[in-house]
Amino acid sequence: MLPLSHHDITEAVQRTDGALVRTPVIESADLNARFSEAGATGARVLLKCENLQHTGSFKYRGAMSACLALSKMERECGVATHSSGNHGRALATVALSLGIPCTVVVPSNASSTKVAAIRAVGATIVESGPTLEERENTLTDVVSRTSMTVVPPYNHPHVMAGQGTCAVEFHEQTKERDCTLDTLITPIGGGGLLSGIATWMHHRSPSTTLLGSEPELAGDAALSFHTQTLQPQMPPITIADGLRTGVGPLPFEVIKAYVQDIFTTSEDAIIQCMKMVWETARIIIEPSCAVPIAALLAGKQSDGSAVDLSRFAGQTIGVVITGGNVDLEHLPWEDRTP
Amino acid sequence: MLPLSHHDITEAVQRTDGALVRTPVIESADLNARFSEAGATGARVLLKCENLQHTGSFKYRGAMSACLALSKMERECGVATHSSGNHGRALATVALSLGIPCTVVVPSNASSTKVAAIRAVGATIVESGPTLEERENTLTDVVSRTSMTVVPPYNHPHVMAGQGTCAVEFHEQTKERDCTLDTLITPIGGGGLLSGIATWMHHRSPSTTLLGSEPELAGDAALSFHTQTLQPQMPPITIADGLRTGVGPLPFEVIKAYVQDIFTTSEDAIIQCMKMVWETARIIIEPSCAVPIAALLAGKQSDGSAVDLSRFAGQTIGVVITGGNVDLEHLPWEDRTP
Repeated sequence: MLPLSHHDITEAVQRTDGALVRTPVIESADLNARFSEAGATGARVLLKCENLQHTGSFKYRGAMSACLALSKMERECGVATHSSGNHGRALATVALSLGIPCTVVVPSNASSTKVAAIRAVGATIVESGPTLEERENTLTDVVSRTSMTVVPPYNHPHVMAGQGTCAVEFHEQTKERDCTLDTLITPIGGGGLLSGIATWMHHRSPSTTLLGSEPELAGDAALSFHTQTLQPQMPPITIADGLRTGVGPLPFEVIKAYVQDIFTTSEDAIIQCMKMVWETARIIIEPSCAVPIAALLAGKQSDGSAVDLSRFAGQTIGVVITGGNVDLEHLPWEDRTP
Repeated sequence: MLPLSHHDITEAVQRTDGALVRTPVIESADLNARFSEAGATGARVLLKCENLQHTGSFKYRGAMSACLALSKMERECGVATHSSGNHGRALATVALSLGIPCTVVVPSNASSTKVAAIRAVGATIVESGPTLEERENTLTDVVSRTSMTVVPPYNHPHVMAGQGTCAVEFHEQTKERDCTLDTLITPIGGGGLLSGIATWMHHRSPSTTLLGSEPELAGDAALSFHTQTLQPQMPPITIADGLRTGVGPLPFEVIKAYVQDIFTTSEDAIIQCMKMVWETARIIIEPSCAVPIAALLAGKQSDGSAVDLSRFAGQTIGVVITGGNVDLEHLPWEDRTP
């Protein structure tokens, strides 16, 4: 039995009613033209703009879903997590809005901008060493001294269900446009978003092909998918900082059941596509959100063969834009311009 | 009698049906928080995202409205205009889509990104000097040698009516959110957008306070408004390249009738607010679109006194985000970072 059902997502929608931004779906004629030129003639690309979610990422959905599922006593004791980025910011902001104490374990090498954003919403910050093991050990230490509930970034049914609420909206919004998603592609880091979305879409739109995408440098999900066996995290060096983590075991069970493939792409393609989306769609997206676009335009399938973009000709392709938190003082193309 | 009525805008809506993006209205909790912190406690800021219109600006509305009003013979002879960027790009793209020949006169100080975009859609480009007079003289020269119809950037009822279609959507979209705009503020360059919007809003939402905004360095509209006499264009040096032009006489008649005030703001405030909107609302906006935000947060009224932001406390403030065409290789804050 899978760890998540569409009923869990329906419950998450009800639980979070009124607490989330119904993020817009946008379409750019200029972006569509790039896809046509590259071989997907006549394809339409619909962008589900989770960069316009509260705190600038889809992580807010999972954090809100998880916190609203807590008992009164659990809320009084508070929540904790480890994160150097969007999940920590989302959880801290949700906790502030619900009056829940919040502690975020932050690795010593985290960007000071991101730590400042977490601190700004009133969370207690505890610094740990930089490795995943050190982060987890510090978090274990924090919760063992308190009665806080850990809200993990992805490997939890309430979090996965919360991320899945994005698919409920996206599916409604495509129906409002009198179209159906032929393909839906998301980035994959820990897999919370993709597993939540896949659970809903498999149930409500079974004709939609579901794809994940990740950087080659963080290609554990594609390797896990290809071998059907969970593979360890790779060294966290990709520019797509939201996707450095390994896939969680619970999301992986869902992904094996419902997802057709996981594509990978290069660092150069990610940076080029990030800039291209800024120019054509006029929205701020993180490197992680450029990954699905780059994986379609210049990617590999999980078996290592090149993605044939012409297979998407004439299709309506849904892409989840996962976040828009970028350090505007250090844009990745600045160092690469002649 | 004014040069524009709400019937003209209704006709423009009918004429352009299906040819425009119904651009989303977005709201950012982070941006609202900046307004609260600055004195407009509890204010909500709704952004009407014309940066997500075809060609990345509201100019597409006016160009489409004007071209669809041409006779078959006029279409065959072609259209011409002068433009510092967005209007030229919009007209050239509309012309391409309707199969109309197009020539664009471009001032020598136009953004190179914008000129490249005009060229990319197949328009003929003719360069002129930077002042309005030089631009108009060159355009007169072009059309005297051909039978082309001039589609001016703002001083024309069909163009003003086309820009006004933006207000029809914005008004509907605020009703869908069960709210009413207490204030609606736009940038003002030539005044086509503000006059079109003011005509519709005065008729359909008379309780909404209508404001214009412009850079101090291009403060001819505020001076014209204060003196109730059309003043000449100022030297075109503001970073807000879309607002360097002087106000047109037709828009000015409408603005005198319906607009409550025109605010001005400094170059530094424009750049800071542009970056702040990128960070809080996660959309790409041009310097011109930062002007209304900067004028509210750090502006002057047309009589020279400071804007008191506390007067907007608790209000729903509509801001038209006019365009998102920016040269990502040269962002204005890069040179100013220590």
